[in-house]
Amino acid sequence: MDTEIFRKISYGVYIVSSRKGDRINAQTANAVVQITAAPPQLVLGICKDNFTNECIKESGVFAVSILSQETPLSLIGRFGFKSGREVDKFAGLSYRLGNNGCPVLQEHTLGYLEGKVVKELDAGTHTLFVGMVTDAQRVNEGEPMTYAYYHQVKRGTTPMSAPTYIEAEKKEQREEKTMEKYTCTVCGYIYDPEQGDPDSGVAPGTPFEELPDDWVCPMCGATKDQFEPAE
Amino acid sequence: MDTEIFRKISYGVYIVSSRKGDRINAQTANAVVQITAAPPQLVLGICKDNFTNECIKESGVFAVSILSQETPLSLIGRFGFKSGREVDKFAGLSYRLGNNGCPVLQEHTLGYLEGKVVKELDAGTHTLFVGMVTDAQRVNEGEPMTYAYYHQVKRGTTPMSAPTYIEAEKKEQREEKTMEKYTCTVCGYIYDPEQGDPDSGVAPGTPFEELPDDWVCPMCGATKDQFEPAE
Repeated sequence: MDTEIFRKISYGVYIVSSRKGDRINAQTANAVVQITAAPPQLVLGICKDNFTNECIKESGVFAVSILSQETPLSLIGRFGFKSGREVDKFAGLSYRLGNNGCPVLQEHTLGYLEGKVVKELDAGTHTLFVGMVTDAQRVNEGEPMTYAYYHQVKRGTTPMSAPTYIEAEKKEQREEKTMEKYTCTVCGYIYDPEQGDPDSGVAPGTPFEELPDDWVCPMCGATKDQFEPAE
Repeated sequence: MDTEIFRKISYGVYIVSSRKGDRINAQTANAVVQITAAPPQLVLGICKDNFTNECIKESGVFAVSILSQETPLSLIGRFGFKSGREVDKFAGLSYRLGNNGCPVLQEHTLGYLEGKVVKELDAGTHTLFVGMVTDAQRVNEGEPMTYAYYHQVKRGTTPMSAPTYIEAEKKEQREEKTMEKYTCTVCGYIYDPEQGDPDSGVAPGTPFEELPDDWVCPMCGATKDQFEPAE
């Protein structure tokens, strides 16, 4: 089996949110598809280990914010590499509560879909939720972020809890031999001096050593001392 | 509810195939996602009216061919707008049978995934199949066709049996007022003289009236007399 071919399946990048009592939470997700048009239903694949899964199971409601292509890595990383059990992922972000009480982003978001779970299926490490869409609204104009764009242009990485995680991704990153690149030991993000980190105002051509001391991983927020030379 | 936002969900374009006894069949599909990495499982959404659905239910096996961006509309239309109950969709195409007996395309295809159904869920008009991936192979290099590319660049249309069909699509097409455009009454494809039909060797700037008599709809194969001026 050639697992590389899995990478040719196309996805968008979404923030799937839910709530548990008064607590709200959300996570980055890619496994979101419309499954029927009449009535409008979505399918979501959510890792069982994630707090968002627990919230959706308990409340039976969710919202999907569709990220724009301009979304900074830091936002995707905040929702993808941290757990809502420990941090309030929405702190400092512009969002509002939808009709079903789930938070929807107002920044870097083309629009959102709110839904109510009508069926669920155990798929091993992940739960498949089938949801009836109860509302859908546009928020900003723009093009949607795709998984391909996220990986190729934004150089984003994939957490182990994603349905699409491939060990090869880390391996491939390790195989890049240029000594000037630095790898984040927390999330696997690679700082490439040729690319810089434009999201954080770091110009292409900036060596790792010259990054400001308060620079953090654009993906997961790890500090500079948590980086090591890429092998 | 603003149904336009559903169009911001990203998809690839796939040929999902199966078999029923000695008969093979396949259809165009967009609702294909990886749902778990360990073990590798896919989810497919397939319309219950389609012969492919019947084949997957009976045989319990399927294959997904991942189309390349260069795939001509005629191939997508052949698998999307015709029924395998009436025609052999693979006639004249380069394909081979996978290990599980399902046909996989060898042209316009980046690779394929073979699978075995492990669970299914009734989602109304469509069935959700969860399949264990039993093999995956690369076929050709290239970029995957995405649903956005298919609609925006290739100007493809959506059959009513698709999970993403939106009435507005037809309406929007009708609202294009230029008299020189012609609409296919079978599938809704619009011939735009400014674009021509490069897949069939028709140069941009060719008026509908000057198309050869044996020209057919690049989407569904309808003949010229099945077109009418776009309203």
